[in-house]
Amino acid sequence: MANLKFDKEITALLVIDPYNDFISEGGKVWDRLKGVAEANNCIPNMLQVLNAARKAELRVFYALHHRYRPGDYETWKYIAPTQKAAWLHKTFENGTWGGEIRSEFKSQPGDIVALEHWCSSGFANTDLDLQLKKHGIHRLIVIGLIAHTCVEATIRFAAEFGYEVTMVKDATADYSDEEMHAALDVNIPSYASAILTAKDIVASISSL
Amino acid sequence: MANLKFDKEITALLVIDPYNDFISEGGKVWDRLKGVAEANNCIPNMLQVLNAARKAELRVFYALHHRYRPGDYETWKYIAPTQKAAWLHKTFENGTWGGEIRSEFKSQPGDIVALEHWCSSGFANTDLDLQLKKHGIHRLIVIGLIAHTCVEATIRFAAEFGYEVTMVKDATADYSDEEMHAALDVNIPSYASAILTAKDIVASISSL
Amino acid sequence: MANLKFDKEITALLVIDPYNDFISEGGKVWDRLKGVAEANNCIPNMLQVLNAARKAELRVFYALHHRYRPGDYETWKYIAPTQKAAWLHKTFENGTWGGEIRSEFKSQPGDIVALEHWCSSGFANTDLDLQLKKHGIHRLIVIGLIAHTCVEATIRFAAEFGYEVTMVKDATADYSDEEMHAALDVNIPSYASAILTAKDIVASISSL
Amino acid sequence: MANLKFDKEITALLVIDPYNDFISEGGKVWDRLKGVAEANNCIPNMLQVLNAARKAELRVFYALHHRYRPGDYETWKYIAPTQKAAWLHKTFENGTWGGEIRSEFKSQPGDIVALEHWCSSGFANTDLDLQLKKHGIHRLIVIGLIAHTCVEATIRFAAEFGYEVTMVKDATADYSDEEMHAALDVNIPSYASAILTAKDIVASISSL
Repeated sequence: MANLKFDKEITALLVIDPYNDFISEGGKVWDRLKGVAEANNCIPNMLQVLNAARKAELRVFYALHHRYRPGDYETWKYIAPTQKAAWLHKTFENGTWGGEIRSEFKSQPGDIVALEHWCSSGFANTDLDLQLKKHGIHRLIVIGLIAHTCVEATIRFAAEFGYEVTMVKDATADYSDEEMHAALDVNIPSYASAILTAKDIVASISSL
Repeated sequence: MANLKFDKEITALLVIDPYNDFISEGGKVWDRLKGVAEANNCIPNMLQVLNAARKAELRVFYALHHRYRPGDYETWKYIAPTQKAAWLHKTFENGTWGGEIRSEFKSQPGDIVALEHWCSSGFANTDLDLQLKKHGIHRLIVIGLIAHTCVEATIRFAAEFGYEVTMVKDATADYSDEEMHAALDVNIPSYASAILTAKDIVASISSL
Repeated sequence: MANLKFDKEITALLVIDPYNDFISEGGKVWDRLKGVAEANNCIPNMLQVLNAARKAELRVFYALHHRYRPGDYETWKYIAPTQKAAWLHKTFENGTWGGEIRSEFKSQPGDIVALEHWCSSGFANTDLDLQLKKHGIHRLIVIGLIAHTCVEATIRFAAEFGYEVTMVKDATADYSDEEMHAALDVNIPSYASAILTAKDIVASISSL
Repeated sequence: MANLKFDKEITALLVIDPYNDFISEGGKVWDRLKGVAEANNCIPNMLQVLNAARKAELRVFYALHHRYRPGDYETWKYIAPTQKAAWLHKTFENGTWGGEIRSEFKSQPGDIVALEHWCSSGFANTDLDLQLKKHGIHRLIVIGLIAHTCVEATIRFAAEFGYEVTMVKDATADYSDEEMHAALDVNIPSYASAILTAKDIVASISSL
């Protein structure tokens, strides 16, 4: 359980895409996520971890997907399937409720909200790596959505870029158990040093 | 003059920091720049190049410095001198006139405005490299401010990241001739494939 | 089938980790891979695609994992599970047969062998992105090993960094069908524009 | 003098390009550098700082320029002037004495030698940033060559990427006083938190 001994100076909580479109009733993608999210108590678990981190004064970082704006993709010569989908569905549309952070998860003064990213990784083409370094962070506790896309991508990039990662396995969700399994059981174990429950993480953070 | 034969498909204009604080009467830094800027006709030259690029349908990209916001730097453990200065002077303060693009230089539909950067290079911790690739760009024509900081930094990064650069030497300015000389004569010739006048560039672009 | 119309000028073949340790009888990892690899005819398919690419004069790039050397990890304060495994097993040990490219897959003059990477993505902390840009490449055809680690990681990074990817689904392998499924069916479809058989790719390349 | 209080855990020495071609009698570039290098006692100062760092058990990192190999550039569609020069002069030719580290500066066990870079910055397209993170480094003391190209480039990237830099101003050299001035007086002060003499640095390091 060595990984549970977090050093507050070098550890941060990373919250991924807590947008209304993902995790609020009425959000564009919620209907596809709520089966898994309600089964593992995802939203309450995310909130417990966030609150525990704030109470323990762990620095909180946000990695957010690009909010859709008209004209984003029309001029691109090259585009990935996930970007075509974002274009088609206008996910997290800028200026709409769906593109806002769910209220309980909004950033507070002292939190760091990284620049929005264009694909799935919170690190790619943003200032997340810079902001982590500016705050002396080397370890990340990760919560948020969606397990096999943005969460897995961000964890993979974190490992590639030199960070140690702890994944909170019941503070994430996905379209189906199959995709949760691919992320949490097949892939993330190669890149995250620990994969724990919200309960264990909260206990560990609370002892800081 | 091989470098003057631009291929429209792979060439873009890159405009660096045309903020009111830099290039408008009354801007925070204008008084320190206007000696050099008026001597080389910098602002009219920048505008001529921009207009020629638009007319020739060259894609226009903007590389912009971070606009100051309260809370930006208070939590950083590590900071560079240029960032301390930005903090102290609140340069390009978000929501103020100084942090707006000078009116003639505002972006138009189809232009690409990269994410704001935190230091001097338009490429560092932003989506500029991604956006250039998404549009198939390999060559950059560079105009803007300040020669020995953001312009030189962005050109150095462009070269390091694989782009070919043409610098427009009278469409930039600096605090003094000494700093212009360091940028244009000492350093940029190692990284930019051509260093030309606005007049030559306009002639070349206009023939596209 | 639009994705099959490759433009030779901007398309390259990317070969991932064709080390003896992975794909040769007697290699350290071959016993764990051969079940899947023999079932889908992975090695002959990889070779057919490579030979077709050479014949069509598509540029060939190699993305290679770090070859183990003594002292690599002893001083690291932070390490990912996959790096601990590489340390333990001394995979691709430098100077040994296992750390050599399988003979039929060796690079030839004109190929580009990117710098070795430390985790799973051929792009992270290497010159692969630079070399692709230096050669004007925007589209990648991907073959190699292992599907859910280095291949998926490299494809994810390629998409994040602006490239369009075609995955050759029977020119890769993994420890089990479950991991192949996670990579090829769950994750890669979000990032690769096409996922095709070696037969289809060879036909398409041969028509260039 | 706050910057002189180095914390050993997060500070490293970064040695840039101590190749024979640069700093040894008979090296390809030495004749162009020795005027400045002998005037400021560059080589003995570099050695004193290196030895002081080793004695104090500061971690030593090397940022090295690509060693020339046949075929490096022939296939590139885009190339920067400094790369054309490297191609023409075959600087640091791989396998030759000029491409070896000068003997007193050779790396020792426990040092970290980053992957070779292609232009001027030790960070661009290499694992230097990763290796610094893996060792928990946030502050760099910089020595080496050439002031206005690789040294300035590496310092600019270090600042852009979140590191704090101390430059040792008499442990570097250049072709002329003009270029030294551009690097040390015009540009580096924006990016390095301190610019000190070897004597001051050695005194500071020796007190660790």
